[in-house]
Amino acid sequence: MSPAPVLKDQERGFLIPIGGAEDKEADRRILSRFVELSGSENGDIVVIPTASRLDDTGPNYLGIFDGLGIGQVDYLPINSREDCDNPSFFDVLDRATGIFITGGNQLRLSTILGGTLIAQKIRRCNAAGIPIAGTSAGASIMSEHMIAGGDANSSPSEDGVNLAPGLGLTNAAIIDQHFTERHRLGRLLSGIAYNPFLLGIGIDEDTGAFIGPDNMLEVVGKGSVTIADAKGLTYSSMGHVGHGEPLSLLGLKLDILAEGCRYDLDKRQSFPPESTTE
Amino acid sequence: MSPAPVLKDQERGFLIPIGGAEDKEADRRILSRFVELSGSENGDIVVIPTASRLDDTGPNYLGIFDGLGIGQVDYLPINSREDCDNPSFFDVLDRATGIFITGGNQLRLSTILGGTLIAQKIRRCNAAGIPIAGTSAGASIMSEHMIAGGDANSSPSEDGVNLAPGLGLTNAAIIDQHFTERHRLGRLLSGIAYNPFLLGIGIDEDTGAFIGPDNMLEVVGKGSVTIADAKGLTYSSMGHVGHGEPLSLLGLKLDILAEGCRYDLDKRQSFPPESTTE
Repeated sequence: MSPAPVLKDQERGFLIPIGGAEDKEADRRILSRFVELSGSENGDIVVIPTASRLDDTGPNYLGIFDGLGIGQVDYLPINSREDCDNPSFFDVLDRATGIFITGGNQLRLSTILGGTLIAQKIRRCNAAGIPIAGTSAGASIMSEHMIAGGDANSSPSEDGVNLAPGLGLTNAAIIDQHFTERHRLGRLLSGIAYNPFLLGIGIDEDTGAFIGPDNMLEVVGKGSVTIADAKGLTYSSMGHVGHGEPLSLLGLKLDILAEGCRYDLDKRQSFPPESTTE
Repeated sequence: MSPAPVLKDQERGFLIPIGGAEDKEADRRILSRFVELSGSENGDIVVIPTASRLDDTGPNYLGIFDGLGIGQVDYLPINSREDCDNPSFFDVLDRATGIFITGGNQLRLSTILGGTLIAQKIRRCNAAGIPIAGTSAGASIMSEHMIAGGDANSSPSEDGVNLAPGLGLTNAAIIDQHFTERHRLGRLLSGIAYNPFLLGIGIDEDTGAFIGPDNMLEVVGKGSVTIADAKGLTYSSMGHVGHGEPLSLLGLKLDILAEGCRYDLDKRQSFPPESTTE
């Protein structure tokens, strides 16, 4: 599903996929910046803990965002498709100036939220300018084509990744998380090899990719963001390689971005940190 | 150390780094092709088992090459720098039409062989046209700048790889092995980021990179060969990144080659299998 259309005189909100395990106690750089984008003391963040099976995930984030000085924070205890019809949840989202999707299992998110009015509401919120951050599973779910699972491997393969329809907050990229920590380059490359129109964005733990309304991505955090681009492929054997056989992909581009680096998702172009004098 | 010079009217021999765990019992595709390049029933392969601490590594390969129809096969029981002075070993190498360097620890190879007349002899043999294959540690040792160790990680870092001087059979590339199996992209990328004149060649298990006298590499075997090229880097933070900090490398090129794909190491250009009609 393509992102919800941006209405006249509006601007899409930031999308902030986070690679999981973001710092919640020390400098909290990523979450602080999300709180700022959400309006700080005048803001109202809504947490969606649906990916997690743990009852305390929502309440925990209330405390975290409260500690970062947000004006108001709520969470929506959505644990079933039926919960998605609760009218009070729409009232809460109507007030939202920021939405945060927690980690857990992205297939829980897609199976519970997929096709519901809540999913539609979240998509429209972002199109209307509301920033949406998501960590781990909450990062994956943002993609139109979501990585649901796959090999822990640095090499791609014919069946190296399982894709499922995500929330479609972006259709420019597939997003993977815990990227370096869980050896996920192979499944990201598998995904972009399936259809090179997609960029692959692999985000390390405690690292956020702040994607602005202009589709410019900026890296914040302790790890790196790896962007894989298959648009320039000169040859791919993905279309005819047999099961379990090695894959050929000639002409991949790889950019590894640490904090401060930026990437234009439309032009597929990387930029060093602005203060760099080299 | 640069490769030994090729004398007038001679042509350098094939270099065949193998990613380790090459098939020794079933189709033995890689070893068979090496035996052919070494002259088959008219050939004489010399095995250098020095990387291995196991006494049966040399004898085992005698049986393997014998079973593949080589005319003669010997091994040199070199276990110390003193052994490198044994004059009978030079006589054996004088007859060689192929040299095979076994796996083990590449630092054992470099510390025992480095700077000896045996090392010089091996280098001159290759310059005079004799093919040299090496598996695992025997593949790594071929590089002028040898990967001695490093992180098992898909992301590069400031201290992600330990380099040591190798045998210098090629100075075009650093070579890594057990590549996908041991998550070694990060250390390969670290190596080429140190000095982008180097290509990075990462070879999977049971996979060989047959590098001809024209520096054209062809892949044979069950896995893939990953070639990383940092020559087009538009930005690298390697020169100023702090210890343990994430690294930025913008503009890397990556080619993943399965069997039949080729790569021109001089022009840094990849080619699909020749039979491909796409």
